[in-house]
Order: sequence, then structure tokens, then C-alpha cells
Amino acid sequence: MNRPARSHSSGLPLDRIRVVLSHTSHPGNIGAAARAMKTMGLSRLLLVNPKRFPDDQAVARAAGADDILAQAEVYATLDEALADTVHAYALSARHRNLGPPAMPARLAATDILARTDEGEVALLFGNETAGLSNAEVQRCQRTVFIPANPEYTSLNLASAVQLLCYELRLAAFGGRPPVVSKAVPFATPLAAYQDVERFYQHLERVMVASGFLDPQHPRRLVPKLRRLFGRAELESDEINILRGLLDAVEHTLTGKGESREARQDDSGRKQ
Amino acid sequence: MNRPARSHSSGLPLDRIRVVLSHTSHPGNIGAAARAMKTMGLSRLLLVNPKRFPDDQAVARAAGADDILAQAEVYATLDEALADTVHAYALSARHRNLGPPAMPARLAATDILARTDEGEVALLFGNETAGLSNAEVQRCQRTVFIPANPEYTSLNLASAVQLLCYELRLAAFGGRPPVVSKAVPFATPLAAYQDVERFYQHLERVMVASGFLDPQHPRRLVPKLRRLFGRAELESDEINILRGLLDAVEHTLTGKGESREARQDDSGRKQ
Repeated sequence: MNRPARSHSSGLPLDRIRVVLSHTSHPGNIGAAARAMKTMGLSRLLLVNPKRFPDDQAVARAAGADDILAQAEVYATLDEALADTVHAYALSARHRNLGPPAMPARLAATDILARTDEGEVALLFGNETAGLSNAEVQRCQRTVFIPANPEYTSLNLASAVQLLCYELRLAAFGGRPPVVSKAVPFATPLAAYQDVERFYQHLERVMVASGFLDPQHPRRLVPKLRRLFGRAELESDEINILRGLLDAVEHTLTGKGESREARQDDSGRKQ
Repeated sequence: MNRPARSHSSGLPLDRIRVVLSHTSHPGNIGAAARAMKTMGLSRLLLVNPKRFPDDQAVARAAGADDILAQAEVYATLDEALADTVHAYALSARHRNLGPPAMPARLAATDILARTDEGEVALLFGNETAGLSNAEVQRCQRTVFIPANPEYTSLNLASAVQLLCYELRLAAFGGRPPVVSKAVPFATPLAAYQDVERFYQHLERVMVASGFLDPQHPRRLVPKLRRLFGRAELESDEINILRGLLDAVEHTLTGKGESREARQDDSGRKQ
């Protein structure tokens, strides 16, 4: 069947991993698997004797990962799909007489990534209903299992592909893959110790002025509020907002109150 | 809408986690999410204003997880679905002005599990196309992101549920959830050191007898074969098979050869 030149061997580790789907019944699952792969940065999809492919349902479920489908290689036999690989891992929830050693998905991902140094590695998924045959599993050096609920291990094919590709992505990037941007755009730098302490002093002063805190019977109000704001890990802008609010309250209560400029002067002077 | 008695609060940690799907468009995704949950031992599905539910497509994609669908709670508003929770985590690939702090899925799973000590925890997933609204995200204390390919972050809804439930299961069982049986039924105990060494001696003797190994020019054959069998981590039955084969070959070559009984005697004597 079609077999483009294999130009991936020298690429990134994830490019040296083939996802091989054997005897897939539903083309929608092929599309969903392509989508799952692409979300995790894998791109090499090989199909062994799929029931229907290409197919509109595959394209629909691929949802933008149609480039993966377009590059998919289709073979009549597993031997052709595994040609030139140096390791093959079979996903299997069932246990096999004479099967190769079994590893859980997370451990397998680390193992697979390490093997990509030695050449191309295949990750093999069987038919939706029957799984992989014993003959197929015996062509692999390891089986991989997903540690699912023992009472219900029936993962959807694309879900299994998604989990394995996710583990491979995390393994490829040492648990910290690059993301678009983890920053919360509105966030400001964390407030420094002395600024937080001045806020507590200001808060206490206002609580006393308002009559809420009786210095003779403080009822642990201050440590409780310290605990609350400590957990929140105040940012510098939040300190400014809170102190502005305290200023306004203090001014209303007493006619006094620090100006914002005085606060910043103060802060600058003592740093 | 329907709201059965909430009897789960005292159960296992995974029973104190609600999966909340908000404004889901496609009932098939609700069914696939139920299936994904059940494979990982989660059972509490809450739906906020789903477009179509109950629905035959949901049942079809649930593939045996229809008990999760039957118990699903349906609400008109997110506030109702979050009632009585003490923490809520919003899955979101996008970054929000004023959004809560973001955590990657694996870290979030550990965090969520720890929070179940304090009460019920919700994990919130948005609409397939639009995701969660800012108003929905702001009802949560954390956002969770899946560290996907920055060029294509479009995970299917049920795939996202699958990944998070998988991480929760691993976190709930300290990375080693119970599985049906990891043993390969055909496996036998690993061979002991002295049995492996006697195999190497026997192998070397046969190689010499066959003329394959010239003791004057050994060409590193023995260390190479030691390396091969060392990697394979021989089992006791495999040693018996290999030594039986060596016996047969040796007998044919030289008319001599150890009997199986002599070997076992030998083994017993020297242990």
C-alpha cells in the first residue's frame, strides 16, 4: 500500500515513535486517534488493514488534525508497519500466555522515549472489540497496560491513544512540556515581606479605629487575618488595592490616613 | 432538576470528586465522558444545562458505563452543581484576565486528591467549542491545563476527562493503582545465579564440541552470549529448556551428555 519515504528517523524523539492501529473497525476512531496524537505533538500514524479508510468520519473526528490523517501510512500486514523499527510496544489490558513483560503506561513512556535513541519505536493498538491477537503481541518486546479500574477496563481506542501520547509528551519534556503561556496576564509580582507587614499594621489600625478590634480583648483576630492573607499569597497590586481601601476607610473614620504617595515613599525608603 | 441525595461524601477520595460538564453540545461526548470516568473509577457526573440529555447517543458512546449516565445529576445553573463543594477546579487551556492560578494536570490531580480530605471537590469542563466562560472560571479556585502541543491544543472533551481521571486515579493510588493481574501467567521464577552459571559452562562446552568456539581464539563469543542472556533475565523454566537442548546437542555430538536428573542432583548438591 502507500509507503512514503521515511524521513523521520533523525527528528525529535516524538517523531521517532509510530502509532500503529491494527484492524480498526470504526473510521471515527482513526480520526479521533489522529486528533489525540496531534494534541501531544506526535504525528506518525500507521494503519494495518483498517476496515474503512480513508473515510469522511475519520476526517470529521480528526477536527483539524487532518494533516496527520493525510500522512497516515496504510499497510496490509503488521510486519510491513513494523519494518525498520527496533522496538515495539503492544497496548494490551489482557494477559497473554507467552506474552512479553507488561509495564504500566507511565513507566512505558519513559522506556519508549529512551529507546528512541536506538531507532524507531512502534506503539501498537488493536481492534476496538477484540484487541490485539496473540500473534501480534508476540511481535512486540513489551506490553503496556493502562492501570484502569479493574471492574471496567474498557477504554475507548482514541482515549487509550490520548493517554499514551500524553505520557510520551510528558516523558519527552521531563514532565514540563512547553506551554503557550502559563502566566495569568493580570497577575503582578508577589508582594515583598515588608509591604505585606505594613499592610497588616494598617489593617490593625483601621480595625481598632472602627471599634471592631478591642486591643484589650483582641480575640486572635490578627493572627486569623494573617493566616487568611498568608494563604492568598498577596501580589503587589493587591497590596495597593487593599491599602487604598484602608486609607479610604481610615480617612472616613478619623479624618486621617496615609496618602498613596506617602506609602510609596515609605516603601522606597525602607527597602 | 433531578437531585438525588448526596450520599458520597464519606466514600473513597475518588467518590468525593464531581466531574461537572457545563453546556455540553453533543450528547455523544457526555456518554464518552461517562465511559472515561468509569475506566478510572470515578462515578459522579453532573451536567449543567446540557443541550441534549438524556439521549441515545450518550448511551451508545457510554459503552457499558450507562450506570454513570443513569446517576448523572442535571442542573440549570453552575451554582447548583457546585453547591456543597469546598473546592472547584476549572479545566481551561486559555488564559484569563483575573483567572485563578493555573496548574498542570498532574500537579492538579495530587492537589485535588489532597483537597478531598476537606470535602467535595468539583472538576469543571466547559462547552466543546467555547470552553468555560470567564464567569464560570471565576467560581473556581484553580484552573487546570493539559500541557498539550502549543500548536494544537484542541483536545476532545471526553479525552480531557479521560486524562484528568487517569491522573486522579494514579494520584489516588500513589502511582500504583491495583490492576487485575500484572503477572504473565506463563512466567516462572527467575533463575538463580548458580543455575545461570552452569548453563554458561554447558553452552561453552557444546560450542567447543561443535567446533564453533576455538578455545585458542575465542573471539569474545562467550562474553557476547553472556550479555545477550543477561539482558533476557532468564527464568528457571527457560534454563531447563536451554540445558535440555544443550544436552541433546551434546549427546549427538559426543555421545556423552548430562542427564536431566544428574543436572538437578548437581544443582541440589551445590546450593
